[in-house]
Amino acid sequence: MQSKSSMVIFQPSGRRGRVPLGTSIVETSRLLGVDIEAPCGEKQVCGKCKIRIEQGNFKKFGITSEPGHAGPWQSAEEKHISPEEKEQGYRLGCVATVQGDLLIYVPEASRAGKQVVSKAARPINITIDPAVKQYYVELEPPTLQDPTGNFERLCAALEHQHHLESLSIDITVLRGLQATLEAGEWKVSVAVWLDREIIHVQPGSGTGIFGLAIDVGTTTVAAYLCDLVSGEVVDTLSMMNPQVKYGEDVVSRISFHMENPDGLKRMSTDLVDGLNNLVMQASKRDYTHSATSGNSPSAEDETFRIQPADILDVSIAGNTAMHHILLQLDPEPLGVIPFTPDVHHSLDITARELGLKINPAARVFMLPIEAGFVGGDNVGVILAEEPHRQDRIQLIIDIGTNGELVLGNKNRLVCSSCATGPALEGAQIEFGMRAAPGAIERLTIDPETKAVDYKVIGRDVWQSFSKPEKMQTKGICGSGILDAVAQLFLAGVVEKSGAFAKQQDSDRFRICPETGIKEFVLAWAQETSIGKDIVVTQQDIRHIQLAKASIYTGCKLMMRRLGVDRVDSVKVAGAFGSHIDCKLALVIGMFPDCAIDKIVSVGNAAGDGCRIALLNRDKRREADWVARHVEYMELTLEENFQWQLMEAIQFPHMTDTFEHLSGVVPEHILNQ
Amino acid sequence: MQSKSSMVIFQPSGRRGRVPLGTSIVETSRLLGVDIEAPCGEKQVCGKCKIRIEQGNFKKFGITSEPGHAGPWQSAEEKHISPEEKEQGYRLGCVATVQGDLLIYVPEASRAGKQVVSKAARPINITIDPAVKQYYVELEPPTLQDPTGNFERLCAALEHQHHLESLSIDITVLRGLQATLEAGEWKVSVAVWLDREIIHVQPGSGTGIFGLAIDVGTTTVAAYLCDLVSGEVVDTLSMMNPQVKYGEDVVSRISFHMENPDGLKRMSTDLVDGLNNLVMQASKRDYTHSATSGNSPSAEDETFRIQPADILDVSIAGNTAMHHILLQLDPEPLGVIPFTPDVHHSLDITARELGLKINPAARVFMLPIEAGFVGGDNVGVILAEEPHRQDRIQLIIDIGTNGELVLGNKNRLVCSSCATGPALEGAQIEFGMRAAPGAIERLTIDPETKAVDYKVIGRDVWQSFSKPEKMQTKGICGSGILDAVAQLFLAGVVEKSGAFAKQQDSDRFRICPETGIKEFVLAWAQETSIGKDIVVTQQDIRHIQLAKASIYTGCKLMMRRLGVDRVDSVKVAGAFGSHIDCKLALVIGMFPDCAIDKIVSVGNAAGDGCRIALLNRDKRREADWVARHVEYMELTLEENFQWQLMEAIQFPHMTDTFEHLSGVVPEHILNQ
Repeated sequence: MQSKSSMVIFQPSGRRGRVPLGTSIVETSRLLGVDIEAPCGEKQVCGKCKIRIEQGNFKKFGITSEPGHAGPWQSAEEKHISPEEKEQGYRLGCVATVQGDLLIYVPEASRAGKQVVSKAARPINITIDPAVKQYYVELEPPTLQDPTGNFERLCAALEHQHHLESLSIDITVLRGLQATLEAGEWKVSVAVWLDREIIHVQPGSGTGIFGLAIDVGTTTVAAYLCDLVSGEVVDTLSMMNPQVKYGEDVVSRISFHMENPDGLKRMSTDLVDGLNNLVMQASKRDYTHSATSGNSPSAEDETFRIQPADILDVSIAGNTAMHHILLQLDPEPLGVIPFTPDVHHSLDITARELGLKINPAARVFMLPIEAGFVGGDNVGVILAEEPHRQDRIQLIIDIGTNGELVLGNKNRLVCSSCATGPALEGAQIEFGMRAAPGAIERLTIDPETKAVDYKVIGRDVWQSFSKPEKMQTKGICGSGILDAVAQLFLAGVVEKSGAFAKQQDSDRFRICPETGIKEFVLAWAQETSIGKDIVVTQQDIRHIQLAKASIYTGCKLMMRRLGVDRVDSVKVAGAFGSHIDCKLALVIGMFPDCAIDKIVSVGNAAGDGCRIALLNRDKRREADWVARHVEYMELTLEENFQWQLMEAIQFPHMTDTFEHLSGVVPEHILNQ
Repeated sequence: MQSKSSMVIFQPSGRRGRVPLGTSIVETSRLLGVDIEAPCGEKQVCGKCKIRIEQGNFKKFGITSEPGHAGPWQSAEEKHISPEEKEQGYRLGCVATVQGDLLIYVPEASRAGKQVVSKAARPINITIDPAVKQYYVELEPPTLQDPTGNFERLCAALEHQHHLESLSIDITVLRGLQATLEAGEWKVSVAVWLDREIIHVQPGSGTGIFGLAIDVGTTTVAAYLCDLVSGEVVDTLSMMNPQVKYGEDVVSRISFHMENPDGLKRMSTDLVDGLNNLVMQASKRDYTHSATSGNSPSAEDETFRIQPADILDVSIAGNTAMHHILLQLDPEPLGVIPFTPDVHHSLDITARELGLKINPAARVFMLPIEAGFVGGDNVGVILAEEPHRQDRIQLIIDIGTNGELVLGNKNRLVCSSCATGPALEGAQIEFGMRAAPGAIERLTIDPETKAVDYKVIGRDVWQSFSKPEKMQTKGICGSGILDAVAQLFLAGVVEKSGAFAKQQDSDRFRICPETGIKEFVLAWAQETSIGKDIVVTQQDIRHIQLAKASIYTGCKLMMRRLGVDRVDSVKVAGAFGSHIDCKLALVIGMFPDCAIDKIVSVGNAAGDGCRIALLNRDKRREADWVARHVEYMELTLEENFQWQLMEAIQFPHMTDTFEHLSGVVPEHILNQ
């Protein structure tokens, strides 16, 4: 059997598995829990199931994917796939079949389950003072007596009417100036960057001006489309980071660059293409002004669209590797001692320099980076949470594929990063998946009966109240796997060491006959859409243990550096942080001990900080200040790091008192 | 016969004429005095005679040129012309034949007679303080104790060792920074633009840094390759403006833009391609340091080459139309009342923005423009000649396809432009040609015998001392045609009105049997390389009269504006200005009356000013000041302009006393 099957990996979800040769790609996607759109029922007529075969030797995954591995091209595909797309490896998922190992990219349009946007923007307080502002001016048309040039005429009006002096102008704006002035009959709206440079001119009072705050995560990318006048978040856009196909964590991305001469450019271009795609999607949507805009709501709200040319400013935050790869700066030195980046300072570049298809004169503000892998995303977290302005000791944990930690107060701040890996985002987990409909997100296990109850994204009713076939469970997302591991521990199924207990009295526990690995069934096959039992394996538990241990160790080493033995509050940031049960995270020993009510989830604080930088120019200066004043700790070089990490693998860590868990964790478990 | 011939126009020389169908292109080039390289003697083996057939309807010239008009493609051409070149219309000149009207572009490499560089750099006094300077610094390599980023490390060294603060860095430089620092073992040479931005980093003490001062004329382009440290002119590069094929003067270029949606982009790209070609040619040359560099000269001077990446700064001067077209700014409003340009101010852009293939981070300084068509070239003239710093009233006449005039002193300066047309550069003249070997450049006519004597470029011996067949005369360049017209007038062959005198007693005078136009033979067929008599026609004389009248009228109207009836000195600038006989120019009434010894030729002053801006940063500010303070006069709107122009058509103008011409011009001519 093994020789008659091939490995198939779907991107961007990362779902993978072996399927029999000859299986259609659409069928394969169902088997692996990916779900490609196929409204016509694989009749080869709707063309919705377009996918792309990635070509190359993907060492990271141990496979070589070739277009030929998807079977011969069929004439039925010609109707839906252009010659250019064919060239790029596009196929119809209902026509192409598995004939060898395949790495398959599923474009956003072909994905059946839209990711639940877990990086939604929080309402935060921002003083709206953006880098790009719009000014309305009325000019005198030129005459023979005063034939002064258009630019000088515009500058004179801006100086006279708005006290803006010594302005320059982007050459792309100058090119259209004459036509715009005529179209507006010498009345125009002028967007000016930092009171320095004219970057957009529109006839009359103009349409709105907008900005994008982009949080580039290793695995997911969130972009907040903001009104630069009101500061309102008009839309939240998100996607998987298209670089995931080159490697799941920062280290494997850097390796990809080192092994491929054009690797850096490919990864950068893929991300920029993805961002351009998000902008294009947004440009097709109808938006309404929110009720907060002050207009009395009417029965028929006026809708508006946002053209790419209306986007005039961008702020981008990412860890150091994401920052360097996007800018095509060599990320190799980031991975070797002494971990020197090319630049710490914030950077201002133009959108066209970066290849962003928005207004070509739009500016891009790259948030500064701190040190090591701790980048602009962490600067964003600090801008949003402001530990540097407070007396109390705050611990902020930003959980992503790369975990970033900040500890301290206004006197001193330290930061560090820990390689949590993508397990907490559902990757590397046997049945892991992103937070999309069908993913187990909450889960309990009865300590007595070991009965499992759970809830999936997209369905309010818990499993115990549902008919099995109604659940359509597909996999486990990050918060679900954390719940599962904690509950297995609390139910005594898993010991303090993370190993399954020797004594097991549930039929959910078993040893996989093929792999010999112990596993515990969370959902029986009849409850699922993939037709097989969804389990947590011993390996899944190990991944979670490693992730939580690295966070815990980081926190402890930072506390040691600051000389504090407890923190006043813990803030959990990141998409994952918004969804986890903080109590259960404490149970498995992810955070140092803290009063339960002082542990709060702060959502995508990095994205919030990025938005702050977009909307307030002073905060850009503060960002540079923060980046240079926070003290970086390279954890792996700390004394006793390895020993501390090993110690932290167990749950819960024995040196902690866990006073806050009494009543939550049974005594016999704590006293194991 | 007429129906069996076709019109052929060669570019960039502009030479044109009808030739019998079936004539090879190489033969046609000989007939029209262009001379394409053909060392193999048209045996179709050397491939040196590559030319390009321009496609399209060229209204300006009244022809439609099609690839098919050059006869069928032959297999012999495949060896020398790549498929890409074939696609672009390239053919071998010895294979292709004339089968219909053709506009043929002769690439520089295929031109047999290299243009005599008449825009050579003059030695001028410049305080060397360029915008781009290079600094040598030694950095501490990063360590675990101090892993600060490369950029910050570099900035710290530049601040500590050279007191440069608050620097930014071009993103393209940041991309190579790590590798350069390592290659130089943390000792590097850093080029900084205006003490503001790092634009180049080289390992160790680096190679030299260079700049280009480019004078973009309507017809010719001159570029001075300068050492940014010593200020020395390393090389002078020149070419025809490739835009000539779209129209010979600024007005026809603007028309081309208005009639073709992509016209602006094509003209801009052609010029940039041409400049890139000049840079590439220069990069293949071996240069030696001049003796002035201070090193004692050795028997074997060390040669060096200049890579495009070593060119870090560019200054560009051109008239307003050349400026707008290069930057792809709409030039249409320049041609209609009130003649408003898009911008007057100088502009700073990057080389890559302009498509220049030099260092991508190199800066381009566009000299500011004054008003109307009076652009950065005239600002350059003023920077070089400094009338704004002097007490005496100076008149500066920059003669090109577009004539530009400046008059005044430190109290007040006025400027204007006059459409001299390309006649003074040898175009529009029956046997006109650019200043290349074989062109008549000096000429005398005996008033008694009407015998002509002349000298051609590339041959020191005058015709009267040569065997006829040694002359190989090919045509007449600008200075030659001016001499010819003045001498015809002084010899009484032509009257004050410009018409040939009724009484003619020379066999050189005749009426062309085909056209019915009067003409005067300058060189008999046996003295020429084109096998026919070279003549001056009545039309040629009219072109020169119009050109000189427009200059004279401009000068007079400006004098009226300033309230002066004479000027203290006349400076004649421009390539043409360097070669003409100022006395004869005064004879035909090109300038207002002035003491002969106060009329001086100042060479390519526009190019000199451009060089000054390249090499001295303060002069860039002065350029902006000059551009805003010189007072522009639109001549065509001046009272009595048409009447004055008509008056000035005659030579010499009767209202002038011509006291300075006594002894030069016979009394009976003056008293006509």
